[in-house]
Amino acid sequence: MHIPLLSQKALFSFYDRIVKHMMITLATGEQIPYAPGESLLQSLKKQGVYLTASCGGKGICGKCRLKIVEGKTRTESIGKLDPGDVKKGIVLACQTFPEEDIRIEIPKESRLVVGDAIEISRSGDLHELFQSLNCSISPLLQKISLDIEPPSLRNNISDFERFRKALEEKPSKNIYFPHNFFSGFANALRQSEWKIDFHYSEDGRAAFVTPSKSASQIGIAVDIGTTTVVLYLVNIDTGSLVDVSSTYNSQIRFGDDVITRIIYATEGGGLSELQDAIVEDINNLITPLIEKHSLSSEQIHSAVLSGNTTMMHLLWGLNPEHLREEPYTPTLNAFPIWDAKTARFHANPRAPVYTVPCVASYIGGDIVAGVLASDMHRHRAVSLFMDIGTNGEIVIGNNEWLITAACSAGPCFEGSGIKHGMRATKGAVQALSIHPQTHEPSFKIIGDVNPVGICGSGMIDALTELFLTGLIDQKGKFRKYPKSERIQEGFNGFEFLLYKDNQREIVLTEVDIENILRAKAALYAGISSLIKEVGLAINDLDRIYIAGGFGNYLNVEKAITIGMLPDLPKEKFTFLGNTSIAGAYLCLRSGTLRKEAEDIALKMTNIELSVSRNFMDEYMSALFLPHTDMGLFPSAAKLLKQGREENHSGRQ
Amino acid sequence: MHIPLLSQKALFSFYDRIVKHMMITLATGEQIPYAPGESLLQSLKKQGVYLTASCGGKGICGKCRLKIVEGKTRTESIGKLDPGDVKKGIVLACQTFPEEDIRIEIPKESRLVVGDAIEISRSGDLHELFQSLNCSISPLLQKISLDIEPPSLRNNISDFERFRKALEEKPSKNIYFPHNFFSGFANALRQSEWKIDFHYSEDGRAAFVTPSKSASQIGIAVDIGTTTVVLYLVNIDTGSLVDVSSTYNSQIRFGDDVITRIIYATEGGGLSELQDAIVEDINNLITPLIEKHSLSSEQIHSAVLSGNTTMMHLLWGLNPEHLREEPYTPTLNAFPIWDAKTARFHANPRAPVYTVPCVASYIGGDIVAGVLASDMHRHRAVSLFMDIGTNGEIVIGNNEWLITAACSAGPCFEGSGIKHGMRATKGAVQALSIHPQTHEPSFKIIGDVNPVGICGSGMIDALTELFLTGLIDQKGKFRKYPKSERIQEGFNGFEFLLYKDNQREIVLTEVDIENILRAKAALYAGISSLIKEVGLAINDLDRIYIAGGFGNYLNVEKAITIGMLPDLPKEKFTFLGNTSIAGAYLCLRSGTLRKEAEDIALKMTNIELSVSRNFMDEYMSALFLPHTDMGLFPSAAKLLKQGREENHSGRQ
Repeated sequence: MHIPLLSQKALFSFYDRIVKHMMITLATGEQIPYAPGESLLQSLKKQGVYLTASCGGKGICGKCRLKIVEGKTRTESIGKLDPGDVKKGIVLACQTFPEEDIRIEIPKESRLVVGDAIEISRSGDLHELFQSLNCSISPLLQKISLDIEPPSLRNNISDFERFRKALEEKPSKNIYFPHNFFSGFANALRQSEWKIDFHYSEDGRAAFVTPSKSASQIGIAVDIGTTTVVLYLVNIDTGSLVDVSSTYNSQIRFGDDVITRIIYATEGGGLSELQDAIVEDINNLITPLIEKHSLSSEQIHSAVLSGNTTMMHLLWGLNPEHLREEPYTPTLNAFPIWDAKTARFHANPRAPVYTVPCVASYIGGDIVAGVLASDMHRHRAVSLFMDIGTNGEIVIGNNEWLITAACSAGPCFEGSGIKHGMRATKGAVQALSIHPQTHEPSFKIIGDVNPVGICGSGMIDALTELFLTGLIDQKGKFRKYPKSERIQEGFNGFEFLLYKDNQREIVLTEVDIENILRAKAALYAGISSLIKEVGLAINDLDRIYIAGGFGNYLNVEKAITIGMLPDLPKEKFTFLGNTSIAGAYLCLRSGTLRKEAEDIALKMTNIELSVSRNFMDEYMSALFLPHTDMGLFPSAAKLLKQGREENHSGRQ
Repeated sequence: MHIPLLSQKALFSFYDRIVKHMMITLATGEQIPYAPGESLLQSLKKQGVYLTASCGGKGICGKCRLKIVEGKTRTESIGKLDPGDVKKGIVLACQTFPEEDIRIEIPKESRLVVGDAIEISRSGDLHELFQSLNCSISPLLQKISLDIEPPSLRNNISDFERFRKALEEKPSKNIYFPHNFFSGFANALRQSEWKIDFHYSEDGRAAFVTPSKSASQIGIAVDIGTTTVVLYLVNIDTGSLVDVSSTYNSQIRFGDDVITRIIYATEGGGLSELQDAIVEDINNLITPLIEKHSLSSEQIHSAVLSGNTTMMHLLWGLNPEHLREEPYTPTLNAFPIWDAKTARFHANPRAPVYTVPCVASYIGGDIVAGVLASDMHRHRAVSLFMDIGTNGEIVIGNNEWLITAACSAGPCFEGSGIKHGMRATKGAVQALSIHPQTHEPSFKIIGDVNPVGICGSGMIDALTELFLTGLIDQKGKFRKYPKSERIQEGFNGFEFLLYKDNQREIVLTEVDIENILRAKAALYAGISSLIKEVGLAINDLDRIYIAGGFGNYLNVEKAITIGMLPDLPKEKFTFLGNTSIAGAYLCLRSGTLRKEAEDIALKMTNIELSVSRNFMDEYMSALFLPHTDMGLFPSAAKLLKQGREENHSGRQ
């Protein structure tokens, strides 16, 4: 048998590929190939091992920590890592390059498990909400039943003319017939013996014909958050939720927030990669649900998408570049109705897909959906709507006017920028109190396991407790007195030791506190700037609606105490949960509500806080605990006074 | 080295493939593999060697003749072959199956050279015709120039809203914005510094934006005939023909006429194969033209298609099944405007593609285009329009009414069903006369070469001459007297020897004459049935327009003599050439004319001759030369009388 000889050059290339292909061994024994030039973060990502990387792999966020157990690596930067950690072999995956086969350990908190269970806030009974809004059901895909006279030799006009004549006898709008409507049209008419249902999209595009029958319409409502994606499978006629499902937005692997993703899409040329990621997420939610309920994808007859403006641009493959560049213009706010084939969803290819309209670069359809679900746009009383998620958005208004702003609160309440911050998932400290004398903290942990980090509501509680116990001052700095064993000096300055076991320490650093302060100040300054913009005062607010997964755990009194929420009676606050999905659900079922969503979007005046005269002043004042103007926070002042007295009596 | 052992079964299959792969060697030396089970016709087709096969490979038409020079074959049927031919080794490729390696010779006339040059009838000066119709220019892709105010921080509505506001200031219709309009939209606006041309399709679909500038619009007009495809590259603004090109419709390899293709599409499941073939033909015409003129496909901004109903169904991928089944219903007659991307044309993907509307299963857009180009629909005088191509269609009418019928004349004038029939290409006898005494024929051959066959106009001349010289009787049968050396007895009965050289004989058989008689009878019976249908007589016809490639060579007097055309003064006849492409050209340039085409299609009453009481009687009467009622053909009667006298005097 003839064996071809390799040329010198081919042999070297062969050698290169075999010999220089280094391996990364995980604690599980799994082996991952490493290609020279890539960071550890990139190599792991290629093989589906995703690490949290809020900064998109720039060495800034310090989240992609892992331990080199064996083998030589080159590290470009240690970023915010403690020297102690560095000694233990901890590195940032995005800054580290193997120089031989290595063995690594990935701490739980660094790992991003896409598809992990996310708690779904069902926003109460949506069908009840729908009924309270008093609208008739009108799906995106509408239907007209036609009984067509079959052709004969004396009347052999084309199938389409015959169909059109039958259609013209019914009240219907001007319909556009795309090419794909006609494939199979002739056979469908004959198979159904000329008794058909004609389905068309609300905007007048013909979809398809089916034999006449009355089956319930199935649709999907999707909330595309920067962090999570939630999907409801809905029986449009009865309003029942057939099922619900959710996942992380796997775009997270390209960056935690919208800005890093926009940069990745434009400078990194990754637009289609980001688009593919979210489309795949949605399909990964649809497919198991329809299998579980013995449906076919063809039976999904419509979809409604709700999300922020960047998410909608990425999903539809539109260049998001100008969203983040002054003067911050989206390509589209009001998206035409497109179809599932264009969106590449596992649904009937001609199912209309409705996008809840956006308002501006940083006020998206999720906020419009939220206002719709809150019902505030129908009442005379002035309400405040806040959605605290990866960013913070605020709407104030009533049935006559609506004013809105994005607060740039940042994703700190979702764990980003906080040393041991994490999302509100298993292992997160969601509530805590600190003993006024011993300073011993007691926790509520999600999932009743040992804590692995602290989530947004835990941070607010921690700040409140540190403030009320007098451990930090109005500026969020640790005081010298009272002394506490829990306050220790770390690599980045003073920190409060929340928890310690064999595996980990969980601390809240002064830098963390500063970040939380900035976030709460941005929210509060947003509210007070908007209120002033319309010539009203905080006390004029009749209702405060808080939306976002965050709201499920939030302690209103504590949030008032640190000056994040306005100091109003507790009964004025209502937690609405995920209003983005609730609004999407409503739009899936009613054309009246889709019209209301469009009216809300058109009516909303967006204030760019970065150019608002008030905002910077308000922000500076709100950087204190609770505020430089204590008169605005009477209940906080009262608690503070009580706290001081207790501390005082405790010391006696 | 390890060599896997083959199992007994695998070894046999291996053996099968290697050993049983027989080869077909052509006269050129080219070798073609033969797979057992396939006919020779199929094997050759697979390798791009196309033979004429009018019947689609059923052994009926007798066109796919070839000679087996060497090797053993099995023949299922010899069809219409002469025993003499069979002795020489001539077989029908569709009925023949090699049993070992063979060597074959393919006669020139059996071979179908796709892409062969076809004479293009330019239908006079089309721009002159356009000007005579007195319409303004309005392309399918319309354009609005917009000068948009750039965004600022104080006015940062979305790009689309900004665009819409500028658009709303201009008079324009309701526009639908498909998803693909928006890819690149944001960048296009900025690159053109907000001074743009917005292009949209006549039916209100947004296409794209370009920087403001005035370049001439380029479009294509395509005539999709059953046999040939003709494409005009047109400067829509000036009306000039940038270039023209044509090819055979390569669907011919699946059958010569629409019926065999419909069967292939439906029973053979070959719809997409047929669709691909015609799309490829069109693209093969476009690509060299745009290269030659240094254009890009993006610059082709619109297209108009004209063709019969079957061709349009096949091009758009619509099931043609019901076109040939009673009650003969097309899926569509009035096709919406679709786009070049859907059609898969090498043109701007968003270029609107307009299909000239059809009337019925056997009255297509080519006939509507023809009426449009004839201008008969605008005048009070009653005209007759005939298009004699692969089939024969007739329209009678004026500016108030139009009546039409397809005559089932069949493709005999294109060579099908005629022993030595061929299309009007190089080597075809296009005109002839027969000496009244010697019976020696003299020819006009296309291309001044030795004749290889006879085309439609030659057949009409032959029939006329045989009739006038008294060699055939009124029924088309050869007479016993006058005796002629040219009349010989062949395998299928008597035949007239037109030509003979070393390579071939060209004869006209009694069967051929019968087929020509049937075709001319169908045409004339169609005309007289329609005339009676509207209560008029032949003499009420003011003008007769003859369209089709055929018209270029047709001798009107001879066609009258055999009773194919009505006996009217010669000056009433006008040859229009290819009116299908002329109508497509007109529709490419003017919305008014597109509207007129639609009105023509709506106005036309189609008569199914197969259910017309008159037709069968008329047809039977027209099966005579020229007709049973000689009173209808006074000029023929006169010629006949002259002829008889000459014959008589000749004999003296």
